Amino acid sequence: MQSTEQLDEIWQDRAIESIINFVRSADGDFNCIEKLANAVSDPDSLQKIVEFLSSTSQGKQAFQKRPLLGNIDLQKLHRLPTNSLGYSFANHLLTNNLQPLQRKSVENDYEFFAAHITETHDLWHIVTGCDTNILGEIQLEAFYVAQLYASRFWLALITKNLLKTVIYDIELSTTYMDAIAKGWVMAKQAKPLFGIEWNLLWETPLEDVRNSLNIILPSS
Amino acid sequence: MQSTEQLDEIWQDRAIESIINFVRSADGDFNCIEKLANAVSDPDSLQKIVEFLSSTSQGKQAFQKRPLLGNIDLQKLHRLPTNSLGYSFANHLLTNNLQPLQRKSVENDYEFFAAHITETHDLWHIVTGCDTNILGEIQLEAFYVAQLYASRFWLALITKNLLKTVIYDIELSTTYMDAIAKGWVMAKQAKPLFGIEWNLLWETPLEDVRNSLNIILPSS
Repeated sequence: MQSTEQLDEIWQDRAIESIINFVRSADGDFNCIEKLANAVSDPDSLQKIVEFLSSTSQGKQAFQKRPLLGNIDLQKLHRLPTNSLGYSFANHLLTNNLQPLQRKSVENDYEFFAAHITETHDLWHIVTGCDTNILGEIQLEAFYVAQLYASRFWLALITKNLLKTVIYDIELSTTYMDAIAKGWVMAKQAKPLFGIEWNLLWETPLEDVRNSLNIILPSS
Repeated sequence: MQSTEQLDEIWQDRAIESIINFVRSADGDFNCIEKLANAVSDPDSLQKIVEFLSSTSQGKQAFQKRPLLGNIDLQKLHRLPTNSLGYSFANHLLTNNLQPLQRKSVENDYEFFAAHITETHDLWHIVTGCDTNILGEIQLEAFYVAQLYASRFWLALITKNLLKTVIYDIELSTTYMDAIAKGWVMAKQAKPLFGIEWNLLWETPLEDVRNSLNIILPSS
């Protein structure tokens, strides 16, 4: 039987290895993302995240109700007014040739957390105005780190991106760090996005959604 | 003979290894700092830094004159008015039981850059108001990344610190990211610190030095 220290070391080595492997791969490599997510999703940090998010009534209610987006009719959303959240969401997915992520049922807080964060990722992109290129992803990673409090996964992605810059192209450091600072500042000003029942807001103008969440887009 | 690609790979592996070793060591480990500095100081990035810094008259002049602080009489500086830069510098070193770093002569731009950055490090701490604890160091690391443009070394230190947080204590992520954002924003607002002849400013009030450099201390 292995000691706690040995298990810690195995876990730590696996986490470091998954980040280094990602450094040597393409930015959006899904295999790397999955391996990283598995390597850094330990019960301790998940529990800290759940406790932190439960400190607001919105987060607490989300863990009680476990609302999921359910089936989404993209074509129907795309017929909403062009300034609405629903239109923006549908247009984003259709333009990028993406499908809404379908989740199986969730059985506990950790599964709900993972399902909710996964299926609302594109909504976070839209509401925060973060692009889907690498700079937008980095900005959103910083936003997640701020809003989820103890997320090994999102901080590992930032770390991976900075390490890639150190190793392969240091001249990207300014734009990468700019993106981190923008996402961080925006997330600290904003109200929590976790737990929002987005499918009640499809018809709401995107600008009103942003205002209600105190999302202040960077000036450049 | 090894190909460029093979040499690149050796260099990259060595750089990654020096960062991972540092992740497993204490924050201020001098051996790790030296190994990291050696691993990431390649002529390409140094040349980019020199070109970037030479784009201001202050930086260009520094590479021409190569001014070094020379011998410093700490006791004499400590007798200056308590609001002066010289007093603050001497008091910082005496309180922390540090000696001014003595540099040998410098023969080229890279050696001058390394010597100047090393011997003025404590002055950057004082002028930016960055503490010497880990949060202050991280804030100053972000400041360096912004002001030096292509510094593998300082970005590697940030990466190391974030990776430590991912692996060992994710609850530090908020304070670490706050420090990065503070240092980054401050550095972008400030005028360049590289190339300043600090020993002409010992008697100047620290507040005046900060104002002239547009150093705006964070409110918290």
